[in-house]
Amino acid sequence: MFVRNTWYVAGWDNEVGPGNLFSRTIIGIPVLMYRTADGTLHALEDRCCHRGAPLSVGRREGDCVRCMYHGLKFDASGQCIEAPAQQRIPPQARVRTFPVVERNRWIWIWMGDPEAADPAMIPDTHWLADPAWRSLDGYIHYDVNYLLIADNLLDFSHLPFVHPTTLGGGEDYAAVQPRVERLDDGVRITRWTLDTDPPPFARQVKNWPGKVDRWNIYNFTIPAILLMDSGMAPTGTGAPEGHRVDAAEFRGCQALTPETENSTHYFFAHPHNFAIDNPEVTRSIHQAVVTAFDEDRDIITAQQRSLALAPGFKMIPFSIDAALSQFRWAVERRLAEESATATGA
Amino acid sequence: MFVRNTWYVAGWDNEVGPGNLFSRTIIGIPVLMYRTADGTLHALEDRCCHRGAPLSVGRREGDCVRCMYHGLKFDASGQCIEAPAQQRIPPQARVRTFPVVERNRWIWIWMGDPEAADPAMIPDTHWLADPAWRSLDGYIHYDVNYLLIADNLLDFSHLPFVHPTTLGGGEDYAAVQPRVERLDDGVRITRWTLDTDPPPFARQVKNWPGKVDRWNIYNFTIPAILLMDSGMAPTGTGAPEGHRVDAAEFRGCQALTPETENSTHYFFAHPHNFAIDNPEVTRSIHQAVVTAFDEDRDIITAQQRSLALAPGFKMIPFSIDAALSQFRWAVERRLAEESATATGA
Amino acid sequence: MFVRNTWYVAGWDNEVGPGNLFSRTIIGIPVLMYRTADGTLHALEDRCCHRGAPLSVGRREGDCVRCMYHGLKFDASGQCIEAPAQQRIPPQARVRTFPVVERNRWIWIWMGDPEAADPAMIPDTHWLADPAWRSLDGYIHYDVNYLLIADNLLDFSHLPFVHPTTLGGGEDYAAVQPRVERLDDGVRITRWTLDTDPPPFARQVKNWPGKVDRWNIYNFTIPAILLMDSGMAPTGTGAPEGHRVDAAEFRGCQALTPETENSTHYFFAHPHNFAIDNPEVTRSIHQAVVTAFDEDRDIITAQQRSLALAPGFKMIPFSIDAALSQFRWAVERRLAEESATATGA
Repeated sequence: MFVRNTWYVAGWDNEVGPGNLFSRTIIGIPVLMYRTADGTLHALEDRCCHRGAPLSVGRREGDCVRCMYHGLKFDASGQCIEAPAQQRIPPQARVRTFPVVERNRWIWIWMGDPEAADPAMIPDTHWLADPAWRSLDGYIHYDVNYLLIADNLLDFSHLPFVHPTTLGGGEDYAAVQPRVERLDDGVRITRWTLDTDPPPFARQVKNWPGKVDRWNIYNFTIPAILLMDSGMAPTGTGAPEGHRVDAAEFRGCQALTPETENSTHYFFAHPHNFAIDNPEVTRSIHQAVVTAFDEDRDIITAQQRSLALAPGFKMIPFSIDAALSQFRWAVERRLAEESATATGA
Repeated sequence: MFVRNTWYVAGWDNEVGPGNLFSRTIIGIPVLMYRTADGTLHALEDRCCHRGAPLSVGRREGDCVRCMYHGLKFDASGQCIEAPAQQRIPPQARVRTFPVVERNRWIWIWMGDPEAADPAMIPDTHWLADPAWRSLDGYIHYDVNYLLIADNLLDFSHLPFVHPTTLGGGEDYAAVQPRVERLDDGVRITRWTLDTDPPPFARQVKNWPGKVDRWNIYNFTIPAILLMDSGMAPTGTGAPEGHRVDAAEFRGCQALTPETENSTHYFFAHPHNFAIDNPEVTRSIHQAVVTAFDEDRDIITAQQRSLALAPGFKMIPFSIDAALSQFRWAVERRLAEESATATGA
Repeated sequence: MFVRNTWYVAGWDNEVGPGNLFSRTIIGIPVLMYRTADGTLHALEDRCCHRGAPLSVGRREGDCVRCMYHGLKFDASGQCIEAPAQQRIPPQARVRTFPVVERNRWIWIWMGDPEAADPAMIPDTHWLADPAWRSLDGYIHYDVNYLLIADNLLDFSHLPFVHPTTLGGGEDYAAVQPRVERLDDGVRITRWTLDTDPPPFARQVKNWPGKVDRWNIYNFTIPAILLMDSGMAPTGTGAPEGHRVDAAEFRGCQALTPETENSTHYFFAHPHNFAIDNPEVTRSIHQAVVTAFDEDRDIITAQQRSLALAPGFKMIPFSIDAALSQFRWAVERRLAEESATATGA
């Protein structure tokens, strides 16, 4: 069960090259993405309407795609326009298309009712493309349901435990209760840790005179998009009051896109606005994030295996679960709404 | 669900050597095949009636087989004739046997009611053994249901798309509408492509002055046996009128035997009656067919994976599907009949 | 479905080292075993009560274990005593513990009602620790349900067939009908083979003047514990009458512990009381047993695959099945009793 009427991240824009037939499964549906000669991106169901063969193992013919099983040819609107030994092509011989928008390096796809696909609803991730910020493109694949990863991202108290040598830091970080605000389609989390040691990844890219004030302020919204203002500044320079002096600032952009019920695409980048002409700093920050995300994947995959053995397992809620509980409620509410609409209620 | 009262191909006769205990699963049932001293082939259920261990990992004792788990000994009629620490063997201590017939290099097995097993119903494949024809033995294994492979064999319009460098040829081949005739237990397909280029595999084994007339005329019958008269002759020499002058003729013999619901044995050979003293020609033809069948397996396996993701997928029929639809109806009819008989209706 | 109110073998005592967090799944439940500083062994459910992450990938902190997902800390009684950003820990924040007893090198665990866990019910396996006997620790893992392995151990007529070069011997061994006595919680089997050849493994460790009288006398009791007095003595020295002259004696200790419905832990050792100062003899006996158990695993795994293909398979009972049938009845009876108790009947 997935929310359908929402924008999912389907890929980095450069994953779909000019001559490419690129296939990725999104919420259980294989999607073919390709560009017509004018560069426009198109997304079609990657399954021939005739016998179900994947179009992505077919071939490009101009702006069209030919299925290489029986030779049916489809245009970019999904319409079959040619079939062997047949003059008249029935109009229902077409594959489904999906609205796609390229914006700030990410491809956004709408898997629900196309009428409802409003590009104005796409979250702002301009830091991915803004020349004042630098980051590298990140992608990892998970063999777990996306909500277990969302849980992880909604509770940063795991940082000192799962990521002691990268994002983590002292256990004082976990001891802070973050502020959690409900949003229409998710939650907003604000966490300040004052007078703390700068975490390992930050020490590698910047000199710090002593303790820092550290903040993580992020929205986590449906379907599972995390957009974060994070960073740290020397303690005493007024960061909690809004002054960012000698700070290291980041604008983390992360998107979970369910592949199937039991697997997930994870797109991420961690733009910074200092030392932007030093590629080594960008690389170092990116590598710390990748290492940390691999650590997350290890523990979450172990958790998933443990839960799979115990279908009736009742989780015991702790106060650190406030945000993740709210987000799961928001998802449940949207699924219920979509299901009510679908049944005409 | 498989048709039971029919002859399936269980193997090439030389797969079962003199001292061998050969096991192959046919329509979900593991079958042990072996030869008694006089060379007679026997087929027994490959599952000891005592605790279910496979007899094929047992040992030959004269014309009998001893299960190497607890030492029960079975004769070629399937009767248990010896058990440790036991004088009287109960008559129900026996494993099932299956009628088998060796004919023209193939082993045919009957998985249904033994009373109904009439060898006269075995299709004629004498080209596999006839000294006027030459071919090599073919076998490949598929991890898909046999009907998806049958679909493929019932629509040769895929040749220029899936097999452009072997069996294929120009797309004019796919543009021809074949004649499809209903048979009692399947379909008969007649496809003539006139004034066309000889396909790659034929150009490798014979010189052609120019264009050819090409024919594929085949019966595809239950369970899933394809017997084909195919070939080509120079255009203008009268092939369509029945004259075969300077022709290259083939008698393709192909048999699909379900292993399980999701896997299939595929036996095939492609006898030719020209250049029969040149083993290189035989080898080249066989290799082209093997290469083409590997191409089929790639696309059909991809199709199967795509369909597995979409249980409710509705295929949209095209006119090229006439034969495969008729064959699927024939199978449905037979399954319904066997089910009615089984329930005593 | 497993018997719960019984002692299972959970491991060899030295598998759980001083600083270790050792995880093993027992009847479907992942169990963490570790020792507090005083050496005491503790067994906790290996699944954090918060979000289900395995505690065994956590870290030791003194006599406690900290979950390395969100940092919850548990003491050896299973109680959560610390959680990030939270002062009061709810008392229900705890993981289940299981009674464990270390005795004669084996760790015994009780997976049922802790009130009923009486260490006096643990079978006597003192030969594993007695200086007058020698053996090596054995463990193998099976991908089959434990009852198929129990069947195997309850019918030694398979020895000459499955183990001809190790434990086996002449087929006269299989021809003997053992005496089978019903016990409260299993069966007692007595098998004497008189005037027979010593089996291969015994010929490697001792010189025999000629034929021997061989005995295997064992209890096989719930959950699946085999304790055996076995051996052989030269024929004519009075072994059947109770005199053990120039004998080779063994006290096989074997325990099957279900891991899941389809996998099993197998702990075993084969203590001998002759040539105890010759490690080569001990090694040779152990190796023969390991080789034989690998042979068992091959045939039982093949049997399991064969049975999986035939859900409705009816086994035909032979007289050699008396013991295994009785043991399966005993298990059924216990399962029925536990189910009646559970439903309050």
